[in-house]
Amino acid sequence: MHLDTIAATLEGLEETIISKLIDRAQFRVNTPAYEPGRSGFSNERDRSLFDLRLRLTEEMDAQFGRFCVPEERPFTPHLAPPRRTVHIPPTGLHIDSFDTISVAAAILSAYRSLLPRLCAEGDDGHYGSSVEHDVFALQALSRRIHYGGLYVAESKYREQQKAYRELIDAGDHAAIERALTRTEVEERIYERVRDKISHAQQRVNRNVRTCIDPEILVAFYREYVIPLTKRSEVLYLLNRNHQTSGAVAER
Amino acid sequence: MHLDTIAATLEGLEETIISKLIDRAQFRVNTPAYEPGRSGFSNERDRSLFDLRLRLTEEMDAQFGRFCVPEERPFTPHLAPPRRTVHIPPTGLHIDSFDTISVAAAILSAYRSLLPRLCAEGDDGHYGSSVEHDVFALQALSRRIHYGGLYVAESKYREQQKAYRELIDAGDHAAIERALTRTEVEERIYERVRDKISHAQQRVNRNVRTCIDPEILVAFYREYVIPLTKRSEVLYLLNRNHQTSGAVAER
Repeated sequence: MHLDTIAATLEGLEETIISKLIDRAQFRVNTPAYEPGRSGFSNERDRSLFDLRLRLTEEMDAQFGRFCVPEERPFTPHLAPPRRTVHIPPTGLHIDSFDTISVAAAILSAYRSLLPRLCAEGDDGHYGSSVEHDVFALQALSRRIHYGGLYVAESKYREQQKAYRELIDAGDHAAIERALTRTEVEERIYERVRDKISHAQQRVNRNVRTCIDPEILVAFYREYVIPLTKRSEVLYLLNRNHQTSGAVAER
Repeated sequence: MHLDTIAATLEGLEETIISKLIDRAQFRVNTPAYEPGRSGFSNERDRSLFDLRLRLTEEMDAQFGRFCVPEERPFTPHLAPPRRTVHIPPTGLHIDSFDTISVAAAILSAYRSLLPRLCAEGDDGHYGSSVEHDVFALQALSRRIHYGGLYVAESKYREQQKAYRELIDAGDHAAIERALTRTEVEERIYERVRDKISHAQQRVNRNVRTCIDPEILVAFYREYVIPLTKRSEVLYLLNRNHQTSGAVAER
C-alpha cells in the first residue's frame, strides 16, 4: 500500500488506455452502432449493437470472475456470479462492497462523449470492430479509474488518518477531494500521456494506421479520467469500513 | 487487389500482433490455466480455462458476425451462425468456403509452443487475464495469417495466371510455395518486426512493464507466421474457384 507502487501500477494501466483508444480511432465514429434497434439482432429493439456487445462481453467475463478483482467494475448491473473460484490476494482495502466506489456510469457517458473527438466522422461499416474496441477501451478506463479510487484513497488515508477521519465524519465531500488533490502530480500525468502518445505514433506508417491528436486524450484525462478517479476516491473514503480489519473486506 | 495495399494492411496487422504478445508477456506462463479439469468451472472436466475462454469468446464473437470476415478464421469448429446480417464489401476473392484456407489448428499449436519462450516461467495466479490475452493474440495471428493467405495469393495469381494455373493443375504444392516465396520481402518483415518491438519498448518504465526479447518474436515470425501464411496461400490457390466470378464467393 505504498503510493509509489500504486502510482507505478497506474502508469502501467495508462499504456493500455492509450493503445485501446488508438485502436478504436482506426475506425470512424459509426453512429448506427450506437442507435437502439439497429443492431440487426432480432428481439433486441431497445438495444444498440454497442449495448449488446458491452453486455454480452461482461456476461462472459463475469463467468470467468473478472469482477471479483476490486478495480474491475462492470458497466452492466446484476451480473451472474462467476462459474469458478477466483483467488484474490489480500488487497489491504477496507470496504464491504467494491460497487460502492463504482463510477462506471459516468465513465460510460464520458467515453461516449469522447468518440466524436477521437474518431474520424462518418461511417465505414465496421460496426462490429468499433464496438469490440469500445469495450476494451471502457474496461481499461474502468480498471485505471477504480484502481486509483481504491488504492490511492486507502494509501493517502493511512498517511493522514486523523485529518481524513475528521473530514469523513463531517461528510465534507469537497474538502475530502481538496485533501486528495495533488495538482503537480496531475500535471505530470498529463505530460506523460502526451509524451507516450507521441512516442507510440512516431514511427507508425500513416498510410496504414490512423494517428490521433495527443491533446484530445490529454484533455480527456484532464476533464474525466483524473476527476472521476478522485470522485471514486471520495466514495471510497466515505464508505471506508473503520470497524473491520482489511481482511474482512478481502474476498 | 494490389500487392502494395495488401502488404500495407499486413504491416498494420503486425502492430496488433506485437502489442497483444507484449500484453500476454506481462503475465507468467501459468501452466494450470492450460490443464484440462483445472478451470474451476463445474461440468468442464475435459477443458482447461484456456479452452473455455477461447470457446466462449468465439461463441460470442460468432453472434456478432466476426467470422463472416474472410480473414477472421475461428479456432472453434461448428460455431452458430451470426445473429445479425454482416455486410462484407466485395472481396475480389474466388473461393467457395473461407474455411478451406484455415490453418487455425496449426496457429494454435504454434502459439502454445511460443508461450514458454514469451513469458517468464512460473505462476502468478493471473489465470483469467492470461487466457484473455491469449485469445486476443490468437485472433491477431489468425487475422494476419489468413489475410495473407487469401489476398496475397489472389493478387500473385492475377499477376501470373498461366504459370500458377499449370502448377495448380499439376497439384504441385512445393512448386506453388516456391513460386509464392519472396525471400527479400520476408527478410524485410523480420527486420521491421525487430525494429517495432524495440521501438515500442524503448521508453517503457521497466519497473511497471515486462519487456520481451525482440528475437523471440522474430524467430516466431520466421518459424511460424510466414510459413503458415504461405501454407494458407497454397491452400487458397489449390481451392481457388476458376469457374465463378469473384462476386459468387463474396458473401
